[in-house]
Amino acid sequence: MENFTFYSPTFFAFGKDTENEAGAYVKRFGGSKVLIHYGGSSAKRSGLLDRVKKSLEKEGLKYVELGGVKPNPRSGLVYEGIDLCKKEGVDFILAVGGGSTIDSSKAIAAGVVYDGDFWDFYSGKYIEEALPVGTILTISAAGSEGSPDSVITKEEGMFKRGASGNAIRPKFSILNPALTQTLPPYQTAAGITDIMAHLYERYLTNSKDVEVTDRLIEALLLTMKYEGKRVIKDPDDYEARANIMWAGMMAHNHSCGVGRSQDWNSHNIEHELSALYDCAHGAGLAVTMPAVFKYVMNHDIMRFAKVAVRVWGCEMDFDHPERTALEGIEAFQKFLISIGMPKNFKELGAKKEDIPKLVNVLCRGDGRDGTISGFVTLNEEDCTKIYEMMV
Amino acid sequence: MENFTFYSPTFFAFGKDTENEAGAYVKRFGGSKVLIHYGGSSAKRSGLLDRVKKSLEKEGLKYVELGGVKPNPRSGLVYEGIDLCKKEGVDFILAVGGGSTIDSSKAIAAGVVYDGDFWDFYSGKYIEEALPVGTILTISAAGSEGSPDSVITKEEGMFKRGASGNAIRPKFSILNPALTQTLPPYQTAAGITDIMAHLYERYLTNSKDVEVTDRLIEALLLTMKYEGKRVIKDPDDYEARANIMWAGMMAHNHSCGVGRSQDWNSHNIEHELSALYDCAHGAGLAVTMPAVFKYVMNHDIMRFAKVAVRVWGCEMDFDHPERTALEGIEAFQKFLISIGMPKNFKELGAKKEDIPKLVNVLCRGDGRDGTISGFVTLNEEDCTKIYEMMV
Repeated sequence: MENFTFYSPTFFAFGKDTENEAGAYVKRFGGSKVLIHYGGSSAKRSGLLDRVKKSLEKEGLKYVELGGVKPNPRSGLVYEGIDLCKKEGVDFILAVGGGSTIDSSKAIAAGVVYDGDFWDFYSGKYIEEALPVGTILTISAAGSEGSPDSVITKEEGMFKRGASGNAIRPKFSILNPALTQTLPPYQTAAGITDIMAHLYERYLTNSKDVEVTDRLIEALLLTMKYEGKRVIKDPDDYEARANIMWAGMMAHNHSCGVGRSQDWNSHNIEHELSALYDCAHGAGLAVTMPAVFKYVMNHDIMRFAKVAVRVWGCEMDFDHPERTALEGIEAFQKFLISIGMPKNFKELGAKKEDIPKLVNVLCRGDGRDGTISGFVTLNEEDCTKIYEMMV
Repeated sequence: MENFTFYSPTFFAFGKDTENEAGAYVKRFGGSKVLIHYGGSSAKRSGLLDRVKKSLEKEGLKYVELGGVKPNPRSGLVYEGIDLCKKEGVDFILAVGGGSTIDSSKAIAAGVVYDGDFWDFYSGKYIEEALPVGTILTISAAGSEGSPDSVITKEEGMFKRGASGNAIRPKFSILNPALTQTLPPYQTAAGITDIMAHLYERYLTNSKDVEVTDRLIEALLLTMKYEGKRVIKDPDDYEARANIMWAGMMAHNHSCGVGRSQDWNSHNIEHELSALYDCAHGAGLAVTMPAVFKYVMNHDIMRFAKVAVRVWGCEMDFDHPERTALEGIEAFQKFLISIGMPKNFKELGAKKEDIPKLVNVLCRGDGRDGTISGFVTLNEEDCTKIYEMMV
């Protein structure tokens, strides 16, 4: 196990009706003038926004609103949010939504107190300071509710890039599984896929002797496999949604990824797809992961065999462990298809002829040197082959 | 899953040589005058204390020292520590040791800023305020490095009781697995048992649909089973100790126990043993748990069958699930014996004739009403039978 530090100071309030305590938590964590940041109309229609405002008003808190966050959140709205916060003297950002809204909120929070272009943080600068952020989560997926990370797409060039810093970890996150019950099945499934991707990206490691984190990741994958099926069968299954919601947080607050190298190449390869086609990130991952895993499998057959046996229930083939490894990848893809995820470029809405463009942005964009690194370092030829496997 | 809140704001620095950063962390978390609190001579002999002092001096921090913490830490030294801190104007407590030292440090930290007898907290009062505490962990066991809890024995009457509060969560905890390598095998094994007890106490729940936390607990039990064997075979196995150290923290910072009722009757029943005989807490638990589990097994056969199959690799007997349940308990006890833990009163140094006294303090001490509650509510007759099963 490698040396590491771990820090997850977010306060989590989990369960039914917890969104009604939003005002009390904002106050507890020092807010007085709030930006309520949200996405589309569903938060309005469901009455969630009204409940949140009522909760703020009850505590005597002032607020302004900024809606319109889209999946794969854009830099334009971040600039708008920064200007609004400065003008209105906002001292707390409350994200009401999924990972896109939370990520956009984090970007605004970092940008407000920064004397420069917020995009600097998405080009490699560590975030040292930010306004406090709280979240009311409505989609189990991105894990942004417990993470120090944010991903934003720059409209100019459609670069999708990440930024990081303990300062943007939410002060509190309100997790009410019932709020996720109104999600369309496709979005629920995309969220499940994203959570499982966060687990696989940590599982694919070159570190040795990391049994405790291997076991924790496997535990969360097993949970997702079991509860994922349940929630697709019955979208109103509160208990399944509750298990998925906690698993989604644990998958990405890093407690099960410490002390080990990680991959994140599937995320990198997918980011170009959702940036270009504006597809759901989880759906892009469903197409990307099986291809990447098959391409890099030979780098460590036993690791893929381990997850195949322990998570997917495959029989270990001691004479041909590569068969077990492959069987596990296929079982994973079969699961993803069973919950309604796409299996190829066509179903995703991606085009073969765009591959050179995708590879170029992926491997050369934002100052990259022609490779992306992770479990295996991949060059432009590798990435081309991987995209071709998805066609 | 039940509604819950979860908060674990401790900063963890994990790995080789991390104790040399103690001074920097004390400074970062606001300390200027430190009480270094520790146990016996091993921290001195090993040179650890000197390294810690050097690290404080490097940051220009002043300190006083208080050694002498014993296993099952006593109230007397806590009163002494409180007086010393007040006299010296200490503003930060640095625990160098295991759970006993950390728990004693937490008690001092709460007592210094409290206008009354610190024992109030160990009689049910919630700890709202305390001096900041940092830890340098030398034994994987109690999980106190990441918990809001402390257990102290009151010398008058030998009551062993717990206190709780987010204010006593360590600001930082330094976890260097190499520091645990000099532990005698018996203490290492007692620590392993304590960690597994923290997991079992959370596993034994009456809550339904808690698959995510079930899986996380099983993951940590599997880790302990695998790495526990390795470390007993080779005490210098850094990697095994590293896996155990992170599992020990995760077992007790509550991330895998949220949203579910818990047991803690084995801990309660054991506390009277270590309070009276001053045995190692883990050794007491090794004798206590199998008896308690067999006694309460019929309350939920399927729960005991589940852990038997998933952790102990037992074959599920679908016609007679009680056989599988029992087999799992026996496999656990066999494991505990294999790592050198006692199996009965005699090996523990406990006496059959003390049972009425043990039951009386357990069920009637500190205002209890004749029962202890948990997975199953146990009365004096139940507790008598359980102690008799251990003879």
